[in-house]
Amino acid sequence: MTDRNLVLGIDIGGTKTSFGFVDREGTLIGATSMPTEAHDSAETFVTRLHHRIEEIREDLLSPHHLCGIGIGAPNANYYRGTIEKAVNLNWGDSVDFVGLIQRYYDLPVVITNDAKAATIGEMIFGNARGMKHFLVITLGTGLGSGIVVDGRLLYGYSGFAGELGHTVVDPAGRQCECGKRGCLETYVSATGLVRTTLMLLAERCDPSPLRAMSYEEMTARRIFELAAKGDIIALEAFDRTARILGLKLADAVAHTSPEAIFLTGGMAMAGDLLLKPTQQYMDDSLFGVYRGTVKLMLSGMEPGKSAILGAAALIWNELAS
Amino acid sequence: MTDRNLVLGIDIGGTKTSFGFVDREGTLIGATSMPTEAHDSAETFVTRLHHRIEEIREDLLSPHHLCGIGIGAPNANYYRGTIEKAVNLNWGDSVDFVGLIQRYYDLPVVITNDAKAATIGEMIFGNARGMKHFLVITLGTGLGSGIVVDGRLLYGYSGFAGELGHTVVDPAGRQCECGKRGCLETYVSATGLVRTTLMLLAERCDPSPLRAMSYEEMTARRIFELAAKGDIIALEAFDRTARILGLKLADAVAHTSPEAIFLTGGMAMAGDLLLKPTQQYMDDSLFGVYRGTVKLMLSGMEPGKSAILGAAALIWNELAS
Repeated sequence: MTDRNLVLGIDIGGTKTSFGFVDREGTLIGATSMPTEAHDSAETFVTRLHHRIEEIREDLLSPHHLCGIGIGAPNANYYRGTIEKAVNLNWGDSVDFVGLIQRYYDLPVVITNDAKAATIGEMIFGNARGMKHFLVITLGTGLGSGIVVDGRLLYGYSGFAGELGHTVVDPAGRQCECGKRGCLETYVSATGLVRTTLMLLAERCDPSPLRAMSYEEMTARRIFELAAKGDIIALEAFDRTARILGLKLADAVAHTSPEAIFLTGGMAMAGDLLLKPTQQYMDDSLFGVYRGTVKLMLSGMEPGKSAILGAAALIWNELAS
Repeated sequence: MTDRNLVLGIDIGGTKTSFGFVDREGTLIGATSMPTEAHDSAETFVTRLHHRIEEIREDLLSPHHLCGIGIGAPNANYYRGTIEKAVNLNWGDSVDFVGLIQRYYDLPVVITNDAKAATIGEMIFGNARGMKHFLVITLGTGLGSGIVVDGRLLYGYSGFAGELGHTVVDPAGRQCECGKRGCLETYVSATGLVRTTLMLLAERCDPSPLRAMSYEEMTARRIFELAAKGDIIALEAFDRTARILGLKLADAVAHTSPEAIFLTGGMAMAGDLLLKPTQQYMDDSLFGVYRGTVKLMLSGMEPGKSAILGAAALIWNELAS
């Protein structure tokens, strides 16, 4: 009997770090999580992480061979192996995170941001299997994206290609955390949906349970639940979101001409309420030569597992090429 | 003495077709042109073209070996070797143009649109030599573009990737020939500059020689000449053009993160008058991680030769890979 080949996938977030072991078929075992405690130094964090990983490895029932470690993290630089100026992690301008992990593991280690990891996950384990040209859009607090061209994730000259969340909808528009105005993610994201809802409550007179909620109480999920019940403000908020997303996705198609665009992340759970009007608005805005060439779809990844599977897919992808 | 290796480069336009022979170093010999006479069938055109090519070949003084034929043409489909629904060519829905040429020449033949040919020309013979990630923007009657990723021209799933002229500046904006509204090329192109100038003449009261010109008399060159002399309307027209181009180039950077963006075509002859404000507006709109990573430059190709050199470069590029 030969040892089972496994890859360790790690998803680092501002509050929680999740990891687990993934085989070539995408089976996830030993998944667990721990607090990130981002006030600690990166060294302290990696020491804690290493101990926790080894505890879980001892509990894995079957003998296994660890082939590599894939990591999804905010502001990760794939080319340099670093995490740089991550707002939610108190780790300074640049941490050689791959180097820190390799102090404990003499293995291939790859790091990239969470949206890029989700993109590779879609390619290896999800609905993009076999596709050479596609996009993944992650709709969470912000809007992340990954672009695959000729079967490879696009990093570009800077290492940061594919930040569609910071393309501009309106140069005089909403303030963005990044310092610019009118970025796509200020309109299309969980936060963007809440902002649009507030605008509509100001513009319109329709009664709605949303009028009883503060900005802080309002969430994309609550707006979705009300939209599903026919709330006019909530429905209009989704429609405006879809219109802006559709328009900017048509622009994205005019750049890389993908076969499909996958939506994932919390807001993608709105399903057809978001997907159908977005497809319609995108099709209306497409340049003629692209019409009928691009599908808008939901991700094929299980929401609770996609971050770890995506991180692990980074290694399976490199081992395959 | 061995024969000199040459590639035939052909640039097909609505009124004129130019061709010439290009060696690996980019030396162009035997360049000539003939009327396209687009009312003829594609078969008749190719027969005429073949006769003309052979006349020129007989005149070439040195013995040579023809390695292939590269063609730049409107609405060319690289994957299929066809010219499809070209507005200025009366050749129907789809012509197997590569097949027609290969009736006369048993050689590698590659066809693509003129902006894509200019992009490959920049990579093989121009200022993009050695770059892996860059864009070329051709500013003529319309706005064409080519995107290079990892050293390869991006065609995408449809074969038509990189049509930045039809990304949207304003969904309620100017009518575009393509049927949409507010496309980038309705603002940023020779025609777009004329339209902006008319808007300014309507909006403002400044005296200007432009007030004596009709829409049909006005050209990008005349507006440029007046801007160079300090005409307020003409200067403002260039500034608005640069602002919109800079904004959309910042969006383009957020897609593929190029090392450089090259401007070419008639309007690029405005030089710093267009380049400097565009760079400034682009830098102002760039997402933080891209700042300082991307240069805006003029093409390194000689304007009169770039179309033929670009077409020939298609073959030199394929022979090199």
